[in-house]
Amino acid sequence: MASEPVPVFSKPVTLRDVAAQAGVSVATASKALNDQGRMTAETRERIRETARRLGFRPNSLAQSLLRRRSFTVGLLTNDTYGRFSLPLMSGISDALVDNGVSVFLCNVEEDPRLGQMHVDAMLDKRVDGIIATGKRIDRHLPVDLSNLRVPVIYAFTQPDPDAIAFVSDDAGGARLAVEHLCRLGRRRIAHVTGPASFAVVHARAQAYRDVLAENGLPVTEPLLGSWSEAWGHEAVAQLFDSRNERPDAVFCGNDQIARGVIDALRERGLNVPNDVGVIGFDNWEIVAEATRPPLTSVDMNLVALGREAGLTLLSLVGGQPAAPGIRKLPCRLVVRQSCGHPLDG
Amino acid sequence: MASEPVPVFSKPVTLRDVAAQAGVSVATASKALNDQGRMTAETRERIRETARRLGFRPNSLAQSLLRRRSFTVGLLTNDTYGRFSLPLMSGISDALVDNGVSVFLCNVEEDPRLGQMHVDAMLDKRVDGIIATGKRIDRHLPVDLSNLRVPVIYAFTQPDPDAIAFVSDDAGGARLAVEHLCRLGRRRIAHVTGPASFAVVHARAQAYRDVLAENGLPVTEPLLGSWSEAWGHEAVAQLFDSRNERPDAVFCGNDQIARGVIDALRERGLNVPNDVGVIGFDNWEIVAEATRPPLTSVDMNLVALGREAGLTLLSLVGGQPAAPGIRKLPCRLVVRQSCGHPLDG
Repeated sequence: MASEPVPVFSKPVTLRDVAAQAGVSVATASKALNDQGRMTAETRERIRETARRLGFRPNSLAQSLLRRRSFTVGLLTNDTYGRFSLPLMSGISDALVDNGVSVFLCNVEEDPRLGQMHVDAMLDKRVDGIIATGKRIDRHLPVDLSNLRVPVIYAFTQPDPDAIAFVSDDAGGARLAVEHLCRLGRRRIAHVTGPASFAVVHARAQAYRDVLAENGLPVTEPLLGSWSEAWGHEAVAQLFDSRNERPDAVFCGNDQIARGVIDALRERGLNVPNDVGVIGFDNWEIVAEATRPPLTSVDMNLVALGREAGLTLLSLVGGQPAAPGIRKLPCRLVVRQSCGHPLDG
Repeated sequence: MASEPVPVFSKPVTLRDVAAQAGVSVATASKALNDQGRMTAETRERIRETARRLGFRPNSLAQSLLRRRSFTVGLLTNDTYGRFSLPLMSGISDALVDNGVSVFLCNVEEDPRLGQMHVDAMLDKRVDGIIATGKRIDRHLPVDLSNLRVPVIYAFTQPDPDAIAFVSDDAGGARLAVEHLCRLGRRRIAHVTGPASFAVVHARAQAYRDVLAENGLPVTEPLLGSWSEAWGHEAVAQLFDSRNERPDAVFCGNDQIARGVIDALRERGLNVPNDVGVIGFDNWEIVAEATRPPLTSVDMNLVALGREAGLTLLSLVGGQPAAPGIRKLPCRLVVRQSCGHPLDG
């Protein structure tokens, strides 16, 4: 059927062009050309005719996709609260929706049997690939994802060796926070964070120390505790009851700690941000926007991280190689009102 | 192959018996007998041999299941934050895991095209059934689920007419809260809640009025606002600045409002629970456990609701009929420390 003339020297015709011309979605166009999906015979034929007429030639990626795609991606998580997984899922979905790909999320909790069952179900359903995610980057999901017949990508969870993984750059995020406080003229910056059992606690604490040293500021030892508001309260008591010089800023390991810190400071009659600037981590909006004043916080860019993971998976599915290893994606600082303006002198 | 003797008058052999005898999960046993799933030929034959030996006769439900099961259920939601969907998903999963069924969650957001795409993907994957859920019970998901070839159940979202739906009993939940306050001797109970555009606001407010009337207590008009902490603060100003008699209890429409109310009361020097008792709604643990004191709250029992929805879907998949209509499941009160003990006289 290659008898019709193909435009030469013009931009190649894409699946998107075919879809637009046929008045259907890219997903539907792809499915029609791939003999997949549910549609009337008329629709399928109309799309094929459009593709022929435009001289559509699937590129190798597209061809590969057309051969083997099921247009679904499995997302495995053990993040029961969804704080980390749902933004990530939204990013993956964003990246794949234009390709007509649906993301199916399964919760494996902490149960290897459940994990195996869900992985089996995903493979039975011929997902194009699997993305594993979790609630912390230093723990592996309770499930073996090596040697599957589909590509696997890790995002915000500990990967297998030699796998492809995306995580947020925790040290970089901590740098953003502490540098912001330095830039505003804060000179006695404390760090109140979570338990020592979390790798991110150490990564962020080291960045905190580094930035203070680079700025010639005194380093006080980070206070380690739990990821809770109650710990924020307690840490303020420790920091402000002592005879040492009081901090003029607190960099907190998450937004809940920061919430506790801000409330405790207010109750001591200290003004945030005038007396003490406070920064959180996670940019969990429901917390960060409810603190008084609203909380400046480090955002791990999980939506963008999900988008990257989704696009990379798509290209693996299409047969394009990708180098193994851990990619650290940058965080960003979301500035609200808890750090104030630059201090004078 | 029905030549072997079948025990008569003894309890029928179940799939669970076969699984136990063969040393495999119920899911694996079911898949083996159904020619589905991934397992070695040896395992499959061993399970079948066990079934033959025990004289296993699938009942009509099981037969039906064996004929047509794909062991997956699709869960559609538009609850991006997952506050309502994830507990529900956990309940569905609980109910189905012993049957080897995986739950796949797809987020349709507010986009009908996305919704259609995900439904198509689920049908392409031959899910056994679909459960639709959302973030409020008076809005329909942006997707048409009528006339699908698989059973559909609605849970915590507005159903189609004549569908099967599970929702929490909001009026009943509000009753639990207000009756609890009455029982503790509170006499001037205010109600601070969300916007008038939510059906639950009216259902809960009416229950509030009813219970106060039944107890011969004065009814003040509920204060309607937003679902936020900030509104809790503002409502306290309205209630406690006025020249009217001050409330000795506040029943709040959600936990975030209650958080704002508790913080605002503390800042006015009022003690919770001694001066004012406070109850929230949702039992969102991350909020309810962080208030000072920890918040007594109405729990919508979404895990149980998900379990019911999952079991009902399973029986529909098995060919057992279920009456259409909306089932209201009871809420429960989770008592923490924000209402205190019974007041004297």
